[in-house]
Amino acid sequence: MVNETQHTCSASSSSKSDGGSSSGSESSKDSSRCSTPVLDADRHERLREKMRRRQDSGEKWFSLEFFPPRTANAAVNLISRFDRMGAGGPLFIDVTWHPAGDPGSDKETSSMIIANTAVNYCGLETVLHMTCCNQTKDDITGHLQKAKRLGLKNIMALRGDPVGEEWEEEVDGFNYAADLVKHIRNEFDDYFDICVAGYPTGHPEAESYEADLRHLKEKVFAAFLKFMKDCQAIGITCPIIPGIFPIQGYHSLRQLVKLSKLEVPQEIKDVIEPIKDNDAAIRNYGVELAVSMCRELLDSGMVHGLHFYTLNREVATTEVLKRLGMWKEDPRRPLPWAVSAHPKRRVEDVRPIFWASRPKSYIYRTQEWDDFPNGRWGNSSSPAFGELKDYYLFYLKSKSPREELLKMWGEELTGEESVFEVFTCYITGEPNKNGHKVTCMPWNDDPLATETNLLKEQLEKVNRRGILTINSQPNINGKPSTDPIVGWGPSGGYVFQKAYLEFFTSSEIVTALLKVLKKYELRVNYHIVNVKGQNITNAPDLQPNAVTWGIFPGREIIQPTVVDPVSFLFWKDEAFALWIEQWAKLYEEESPSRMIIQYIHDNYYLVNLVDNDFPLENCLWQVVDDTFELLN
Amino acid sequence: MVNETQHTCSASSSSKSDGGSSSGSESSKDSSRCSTPVLDADRHERLREKMRRRQDSGEKWFSLEFFPPRTANAAVNLISRFDRMGAGGPLFIDVTWHPAGDPGSDKETSSMIIANTAVNYCGLETVLHMTCCNQTKDDITGHLQKAKRLGLKNIMALRGDPVGEEWEEEVDGFNYAADLVKHIRNEFDDYFDICVAGYPTGHPEAESYEADLRHLKEKVFAAFLKFMKDCQAIGITCPIIPGIFPIQGYHSLRQLVKLSKLEVPQEIKDVIEPIKDNDAAIRNYGVELAVSMCRELLDSGMVHGLHFYTLNREVATTEVLKRLGMWKEDPRRPLPWAVSAHPKRRVEDVRPIFWASRPKSYIYRTQEWDDFPNGRWGNSSSPAFGELKDYYLFYLKSKSPREELLKMWGEELTGEESVFEVFTCYITGEPNKNGHKVTCMPWNDDPLATETNLLKEQLEKVNRRGILTINSQPNINGKPSTDPIVGWGPSGGYVFQKAYLEFFTSSEIVTALLKVLKKYELRVNYHIVNVKGQNITNAPDLQPNAVTWGIFPGREIIQPTVVDPVSFLFWKDEAFALWIEQWAKLYEEESPSRMIIQYIHDNYYLVNLVDNDFPLENCLWQVVDDTFELLN
Repeated sequence: MVNETQHTCSASSSSKSDGGSSSGSESSKDSSRCSTPVLDADRHERLREKMRRRQDSGEKWFSLEFFPPRTANAAVNLISRFDRMGAGGPLFIDVTWHPAGDPGSDKETSSMIIANTAVNYCGLETVLHMTCCNQTKDDITGHLQKAKRLGLKNIMALRGDPVGEEWEEEVDGFNYAADLVKHIRNEFDDYFDICVAGYPTGHPEAESYEADLRHLKEKVFAAFLKFMKDCQAIGITCPIIPGIFPIQGYHSLRQLVKLSKLEVPQEIKDVIEPIKDNDAAIRNYGVELAVSMCRELLDSGMVHGLHFYTLNREVATTEVLKRLGMWKEDPRRPLPWAVSAHPKRRVEDVRPIFWASRPKSYIYRTQEWDDFPNGRWGNSSSPAFGELKDYYLFYLKSKSPREELLKMWGEELTGEESVFEVFTCYITGEPNKNGHKVTCMPWNDDPLATETNLLKEQLEKVNRRGILTINSQPNINGKPSTDPIVGWGPSGGYVFQKAYLEFFTSSEIVTALLKVLKKYELRVNYHIVNVKGQNITNAPDLQPNAVTWGIFPGREIIQPTVVDPVSFLFWKDEAFALWIEQWAKLYEEESPSRMIIQYIHDNYYLVNLVDNDFPLENCLWQVVDDTFELLN
Repeated sequence: MVNETQHTCSASSSSKSDGGSSSGSESSKDSSRCSTPVLDADRHERLREKMRRRQDSGEKWFSLEFFPPRTANAAVNLISRFDRMGAGGPLFIDVTWHPAGDPGSDKETSSMIIANTAVNYCGLETVLHMTCCNQTKDDITGHLQKAKRLGLKNIMALRGDPVGEEWEEEVDGFNYAADLVKHIRNEFDDYFDICVAGYPTGHPEAESYEADLRHLKEKVFAAFLKFMKDCQAIGITCPIIPGIFPIQGYHSLRQLVKLSKLEVPQEIKDVIEPIKDNDAAIRNYGVELAVSMCRELLDSGMVHGLHFYTLNREVATTEVLKRLGMWKEDPRRPLPWAVSAHPKRRVEDVRPIFWASRPKSYIYRTQEWDDFPNGRWGNSSSPAFGELKDYYLFYLKSKSPREELLKMWGEELTGEESVFEVFTCYITGEPNKNGHKVTCMPWNDDPLATETNLLKEQLEKVNRRGILTINSQPNINGKPSTDPIVGWGPSGGYVFQKAYLEFFTSSEIVTALLKVLKKYELRVNYHIVNVKGQNITNAPDLQPNAVTWGIFPGREIIQPTVVDPVSFLFWKDEAFALWIEQWAKLYEEESPSRMIIQYIHDNYYLVNLVDNDFPLENCLWQVVDDTFELLN
């Protein structure tokens, strides 16, 4: 760990120095009280407020730095990494900016789009880096406007590296990070929270800091603590956050040293040089070193947060955080679904159940909604769902390549029964007849949810017989909100669910099902629709049916999941299209396999069932059993 | 029963005759779908739609006619009668219009204000009569505009009686009910549903009907059925409703005959004349006659609804309806509180619990609200509550006169303990030491609610010791919505409550209570405030706490009652003021009794407690017990 660059985040205090630190303001334009129940204060605070609150409460935090990936595949992997590392509870992540890589473009690998994905689809508080040298004011303003439009709220303002070897000041141009900070404040007032970088041991190019270079051999934390005290002495009161670079390998360390023009302390060189060919040994040493350094920083009482340069890798940083006891993998969720961090969506507290396994698709298709009316579902017929055109958007793509999908879903289908078999293997987790496990389906990119495991036995039975389930939840009658499987929201509450089952099935089974449902008319709500939109339902007046809700101390009732008849017809299009786009197209045109999937797409119905009587035993399995009996 | 006047209500069908019947229109401007859960279709339908729906389903209905009272006391009684007779389930009530009595004024006894009270405060679908002869267009338009502003949606358009003996047509004036109907449609488009009157045996003044007079001796229902057929034959398709006048006394019958210029059939005269001095016998005969006539009308299959001329009396009409099996005293409620029938309030589905015993006061104080934001509470700080000035509004007045209140609450108070005694007697239902039962309190105009009876024993205990309770509810963990005591909403649902307790108490008890509440910090939410507004609470961020909610098949969750910190401060003003306005002012100024109440008003605190853990046994009694223990 040799990088001594420090992050300074503009806070609401009155730090007014013009140097590297940015100015802040007490009054936040964005602070009008929200009228929906606030289950999660973090969702409504600015980054500076989150830091301030943790500083006041003494709670330590960490953040994670990533760079934009080079390829679309690497982007898909990085986004999975966001989801996994997001689970450890970083206060924010940041995405670096590389002027040479078209960082503000719409490419799926640009800094802008990666940050957009982190905020909107992964729900992470995100800081976007931005450099200013060799750029026009218009360029910069364009980038900032775009960032704002995408829901980004935090900018790390940097000077950037000169283009050639020599540094030349431009008249009227951006020469220092401070110029960028001033520009952001001029053009966007207090909208953005601004972070800036500082070098506790002096910036290698800063002449006036030359004398400080002799401190390079001092222990880094000593330098940092002195730096903090010096900052405070001259009136910088905003949070100052040390950046931690866990040494992960000999070459990446050399690369960093070269780029940053910093030197590695001799003590560290002495350890590393002899083991330079042993990657594991170097990483272990790096973790060890980072843990002890972080401990000293935290124990000083002056440091409240740690910023990690991950180099887009998980293992070392996660290991350091776990050993520090800062990795907070909390199985509890603020809501049953993953919330987005876009400011526009912070009042969103209800979603249709249909997209439960495709939350990124739901966010994508509702991204143009101006309004989440009081976070409440209400009438969904006015806001239109986005068009179903971009199956190829990289963050909606299946993570598995075609060959793997064929192994899972069958190189060659012999009839509808081969399809039943695929669904059944996905449910049971058993390998298919060619020995491959089915770990994803067109409607579910991940293995079965823990909660769905509760229903495994029943699900297996019905899938085997052609009730092809794609979504389900058990009924829950008042479990504590801290329940490790079905709990969500703050502690001290109770959560409830109505049993839900959604599946594709043949028209023959639907005919029998409808006869059976007559017996359950007052208890079970159903929606049955085919690809052409022929729709059979007993739902009253297109009203949404709340199927997940929670009761919490001192709060209004939260009902985050509904079965909504209007959005179901939008979901229907997507659900049917996935048969073709994700499955049928794996096979040659006109091939028997493709025609089987096409037949199912054209002839099957999509069915959803809700058992309204949540305190009683779930009757939906009985409904299905009765249907099979009627068919026999 | 001799009155053959018939009501014809404009329906959405295309009845286009210009005579007595009014025109309707298919397109309702008011039909935009509401975004809140519709628990009760009736709340969102126009009168014509309600009639149509019942006609389609074959459900028989009745309506009740009242006239405006002559004195303020009579108005208070009439409003109580609205509440009692409203419980029988009339489809609507109507209020007659007497040009001589200033019917459109703001007097508490005017037709306009009585109809306003029926709609807004008693939640009754209401038809306001309006006559047009001898009035200018501007007068009429003014009345109609006022009616619309007050939330009235239905007008019974009448010609009215001529001023002198002779009838003179006015050029350009209103000469027939049809002129009024046309005027209403011209000026207000389709806003109002319009009813008109018809005479099945011919109007006594209508020359062209003279020949019909010979039918007078036929049985009235035969006349009515013929009238209906004749109407249908000439294309009148809107609902036609027979008006029923149960004979209630010899003199009221004579009076009616004189006014209506109708004759009593000889068969009826033959029965009545010999018993004309026996009121009970005449009323029994009248009930008998009305029941048999109504049965024949209903059995004909052509009549779907019956309209009753009550003469502002309850017994005869109620008796007829009960014997017909049409009196539907349904203990189930659409919501836990009585809903208002003002169209503006039809989306209202949540109220603060504080006004539970003073719903009319709540409606009055929120009557200027433009918005019940999606029927949802949300942030109550923006809409302002109405001023607390009109204690003397007749519908907010206590029903009991001063002498009675003194008997109940004490001619002479000897100390705070005499006040405790009054509260205790109200709870127990036992007479006070002077032998008088306490049937109302300044905060509760009615005896204890059935639901509160569940808590009686505990309430008695704490009131005796100076915890002066004014509002409470037990916790409920999922009882069927059809439960006769705590149920509400459509069947097939489940209702829930958090335990609630609200009381006045001394600062000494509050000090002990606050110590005790520390133990219950995570479980119990409290608000404690004195008359000066000194406020102690542990409620998070001024958010409302839902204390009553219901889960229904195919619906969103309904949470009709909240403890809302903002509205509590408005309620506080009203709750403290009632000590003075309703109680202290019964006594002479400077009298010891008055000073005792004044002392309590100045020094006590108003406290509310919510036990959030609704599935467990209510802990609020333990909180109070612990408090008393700490004091001992």
